[in-house]
Amino acid sequence: MILPIAEADDPRIADFRDVRERDLVGRQGAFMAEGEVVLRLLVSRLGGADSHCLRALLLSEAQAQRLGDVIAALPQDVPVYVAGQKVMDQVVGFPIHRGILALGVARPLPEPAALLERLGERALVVAALGLTNHDNMGGIFRNAAAFGADAVLIDAACCDPLYRKAIRVSVGASLVVPFARVADGAAAVELLKARGFEVVALSPAGREPLSRLVRPPRVAALFGTEGPGLPDAVMAMTRTVAIPMAAGFDSLNVATTSGIVLHHLSGV
Amino acid sequence: MILPIAEADDPRIADFRDVRERDLVGRQGAFMAEGEVVLRLLVSRLGGADSHCLRALLLSEAQAQRLGDVIAALPQDVPVYVAGQKVMDQVVGFPIHRGILALGVARPLPEPAALLERLGERALVVAALGLTNHDNMGGIFRNAAAFGADAVLIDAACCDPLYRKAIRVSVGASLVVPFARVADGAAAVELLKARGFEVVALSPAGREPLSRLVRPPRVAALFGTEGPGLPDAVMAMTRTVAIPMAAGFDSLNVATTSGIVLHHLSGV
Repeated sequence: MILPIAEADDPRIADFRDVRERDLVGRQGAFMAEGEVVLRLLVSRLGGADSHCLRALLLSEAQAQRLGDVIAALPQDVPVYVAGQKVMDQVVGFPIHRGILALGVARPLPEPAALLERLGERALVVAALGLTNHDNMGGIFRNAAAFGADAVLIDAACCDPLYRKAIRVSVGASLVVPFARVADGAAAVELLKARGFEVVALSPAGREPLSRLVRPPRVAALFGTEGPGLPDAVMAMTRTVAIPMAAGFDSLNVATTSGIVLHHLSGV
Repeated sequence: MILPIAEADDPRIADFRDVRERDLVGRQGAFMAEGEVVLRLLVSRLGGADSHCLRALLLSEAQAQRLGDVIAALPQDVPVYVAGQKVMDQVVGFPIHRGILALGVARPLPEPAALLERLGERALVVAALGLTNHDNMGGIFRNAAAFGADAVLIDAACCDPLYRKAIRVSVGASLVVPFARVADGAAAVELLKARGFEVVALSPAGREPLSRLVRPPRVAALFGTEGPGLPDAVMAMTRTVAIPMAAGFDSLNVATTSGIVLHHLSGV
């Protein structure tokens, strides 16, 4: 259902307005996705029992012409608003060079226990604690998808993986990899251990090097912030693992760390 | 030498003005570094045969008080301009919350052949081709430092590792890890092979999985852009290696890829 838009203040596209500021405010359940790769991923998963809901698209005229196959595959009731690039930039609030915005409503977040119950005897879970940076959150989800992680747990202090920037950096992975929120690290570890997961906490102070870790069938990898790292109480409950580094440099970006760890765990 | 600054248009701090725009323009040899960690790293390396030159500091009043030990360790002729946060924000052109800016002049770039000649019998080199994103460039340097890479080669199409954002993302590593510029990928491979380096090119189309690669004593890892990847001609000249991924997701961020590869190569 293609609907041309001539004016930036057209009320039908009010939800797309000032996307950047909405990012800061957050809106329960709603998300904004950008770009072709993410849109195609989102559309390919529509209609599943567990899928997100696509509410509307806003496309530049050039993109609407290019993406005929995507538009044809949409459910009939999804409006596709098409605007000139200039109007689109006005609506969005900054020059959005990709010309593709999708507005969705997220599936309800599962309870963490219910999410873990669904996993098989061999399973890989990522747990992120205190991560407030959308680049890092997106990067962790991208790596989780790339290495076949089955689920992600985030604590109450983590930012929303469905914020626009996190979705973009994840290349859509945060729309696909199931995740749930726990109160804190201790709650995550308890939930995981009760289900037979070996919980591996990454820290420069870890007691064994990652390269020696043999993958347990059910394993969860825990990542904290780069500065303070994981709380001592969480470290004490887990198997702590370090990535050895050159003298003088003892820190890696947390998303990079997750890539190294998940590569190791998925390959063993 | 502490020099209080009361007005944003004080000509003594003209070089700090509108830092963000300068980033876009670029200035041969000059660089701007932000934040305490990077400043301390920079200062700790001053005076070496191969060190960069520190031209001036601009600090907020609060940071000038905190960083007394750093200021005391500076050469006498380095001016330390101190301004209130408001003046500093006006000078820089945006609210710079860290309140620490250092202006330097880079050491001359070595010739790539000369850089490689200096390396030992066991050496690890990173080569980046066509990387135009400062986040990725900074991330690669951070990983190169973390895993003890001896040098980085970049091709003519790569962005400058000493741009402000690249320095920041690298946590100063691009100021420390030696690098040189080559014309293109073929030139890099030829230079490396002539000196006994095994050249490993990372690509989703690589012929062997990374986990099976036994580290050669002299090894170079080649990384291209995420989209087009490495040119076929370069792939044909090298040993191609893939990082196996889950079905449906065949791409990793290039900085994350470098972390996985360097972790593997440094640990074997």
